[in-house]
Amino acid sequence: MSDSRFSSPSSDRPTFDVVGIGNALVDVIAHASDDFLVGHDLVKGAMTLIETERAVELYGALSGAVEMSGGSAANTMCGIASFRGKAAYIGKVDDDDLGQVFGHDMRAVGVAFPGELSKQSVPTGRCVIVVTPDAERTMNTFLGVSSTLGVDDLDESVIAAGQVLYMEGYLFDRDPAKAAFRRAADVAHTHGRTVSLTLSDSFCVDRHREDFRGLVADSVDLLFGNEDELLSLYELTDFDEAVAALRAECSTGVITRGAAGCVVVTRDELIEVPAVPVDRVVDTTGAGDLFAAGFLHGYTTGADLAECGRLGSIAAAEVISHVGPRPLVELHTLRDDD
Amino acid sequence: MSDSRFSSPSSDRPTFDVVGIGNALVDVIAHASDDFLVGHDLVKGAMTLIETERAVELYGALSGAVEMSGGSAANTMCGIASFRGKAAYIGKVDDDDLGQVFGHDMRAVGVAFPGELSKQSVPTGRCVIVVTPDAERTMNTFLGVSSTLGVDDLDESVIAAGQVLYMEGYLFDRDPAKAAFRRAADVAHTHGRTVSLTLSDSFCVDRHREDFRGLVADSVDLLFGNEDELLSLYELTDFDEAVAALRAECSTGVITRGAAGCVVVTRDELIEVPAVPVDRVVDTTGAGDLFAAGFLHGYTTGADLAECGRLGSIAAAEVISHVGPRPLVELHTLRDDD
Repeated sequence: MSDSRFSSPSSDRPTFDVVGIGNALVDVIAHASDDFLVGHDLVKGAMTLIETERAVELYGALSGAVEMSGGSAANTMCGIASFRGKAAYIGKVDDDDLGQVFGHDMRAVGVAFPGELSKQSVPTGRCVIVVTPDAERTMNTFLGVSSTLGVDDLDESVIAAGQVLYMEGYLFDRDPAKAAFRRAADVAHTHGRTVSLTLSDSFCVDRHREDFRGLVADSVDLLFGNEDELLSLYELTDFDEAVAALRAECSTGVITRGAAGCVVVTRDELIEVPAVPVDRVVDTTGAGDLFAAGFLHGYTTGADLAECGRLGSIAAAEVISHVGPRPLVELHTLRDDD
Repeated sequence: MSDSRFSSPSSDRPTFDVVGIGNALVDVIAHASDDFLVGHDLVKGAMTLIETERAVELYGALSGAVEMSGGSAANTMCGIASFRGKAAYIGKVDDDDLGQVFGHDMRAVGVAFPGELSKQSVPTGRCVIVVTPDAERTMNTFLGVSSTLGVDDLDESVIAAGQVLYMEGYLFDRDPAKAAFRRAADVAHTHGRTVSLTLSDSFCVDRHREDFRGLVADSVDLLFGNEDELLSLYELTDFDEAVAALRAECSTGVITRGAAGCVVVTRDELIEVPAVPVDRVVDTTGAGDLFAAGFLHGYTTGADLAECGRLGSIAAAEVISHVGPRPLVELHTLRDDD
């Protein structure tokens, strides 16, 4: 429950602004109607974990698709690099075509991706994303090798070298990853770093509520989530009560509320930041990931919390204006103070 | 040199409007500057064949990319399906991720793709496409297993079942494929079908001019090409002379001229068809492929040659308005006579 941003600095100057840990996935993006969701029992807007058979069935039923690298924390690290911040990523891919694609796209934007390709012959994970005409995305994730990440896959020197550790709640669906998160948080705190977590998905929070609660209370300095996820975490229905619960446990909380912007809370402050309006929302994939990228870039470059929220909103607005979960323009060019 | 559209019909009614044969490729599309082309000795607008090492080098130097199914004749077959025509495709992919992607995307739009996945452990071919700010695409093709297509890979019952056989000149870079083209043309003619060919690329024509000349003179009823390709075929510099040479050898020729539209020539007619204007050209990848799709759809549904050209222009205009080589809207909805 320390806030290492304000604790005594580590003896080492951090090499990276942020080190992310998450499910390394390639997105398979296809457009479909609302009827398609109903016909395939898909819950609009949710992320559902699927096994091989279901992945094959869904993919087979979809129209022509586009493949591009995704993964929540990976998108966030790419966003930070696009702001010209320094990011590193820990996540597992196989030595197959999609694993090669994932690694290429991380390195191409300048994110350090020090892991080796897995030789376990478990395929690289993929997220089959159905985009409906209202631009909502419904995600069906076949985790593949990504979900086998455990303590042994952590490069502790990388974690120690990051000013902020950023962990993706999606990965928290498997026990080895839970152990890895606790270990990663310990390593970060030992080196005087800030530990952040994104809750990722209200269903994921629901499946692992007690573990999430324990992690947040014991180890998280900076928590990201949306309104649904926060309410699920504390099993509350009132937003203000949930915010109060969060403030008692975590030094900084950042709650996104879609088009209503975000709320940043500390023990002493509550700051509301409006969303950046966009002409047309094309695909909301990556909105939360890029919000976190902007916020973290501000956070690691000394901006105040309102400015962190503003940078988050700028990055989210860019990514929802086009298909795909990663920015198409250099985000640093969108900062009007540059 | 027969024109089977007007010859006595085969005893079998065709199952498919068009059967395409080509290099089965997945496109890897990335944006880069003109300086990138210069720095990597790339000839803007051309298609260059590359080997593994060069493919790795170029891919490594490019920024984040998007993967989507491509391949010239494959794009054309998808366009025909998008007009609600019936298309089949013959081309080779490996049993790897990209091969799965390719097969999915063909079947998803309703193109029959009867081939089995190759077990040769030669990877699925890919085309690394660099899109410059002027929307021009420069293609670097690692052919992989696609270029191993030979006579044994032809399903003659499929070729016999197609009203038009459509062969992609790009495939003509290897001897086994040349033999396969001659065999496929023979099978088609035996069943009273029309044989068409697209020249694909002036450099490819230049590499294999005599073989192309022989194929056109002996076997092709309907030839597609652009101005550069036609001039290269006959080693001429004057367009009118090249058109005259084509008319002497081939019953129907369709020459595209970019924004200037196309010229359709038969022994008796010369028809000029204007291009359909577009608000903004985003990516010219697939322009020629989709032009052929529209033309062939008209041709196989009894339209006159001017209308065939108009349908080609409509399809080409759609595909150059967005990133990617295949239509994003159902092309049949763009026919104003529907």
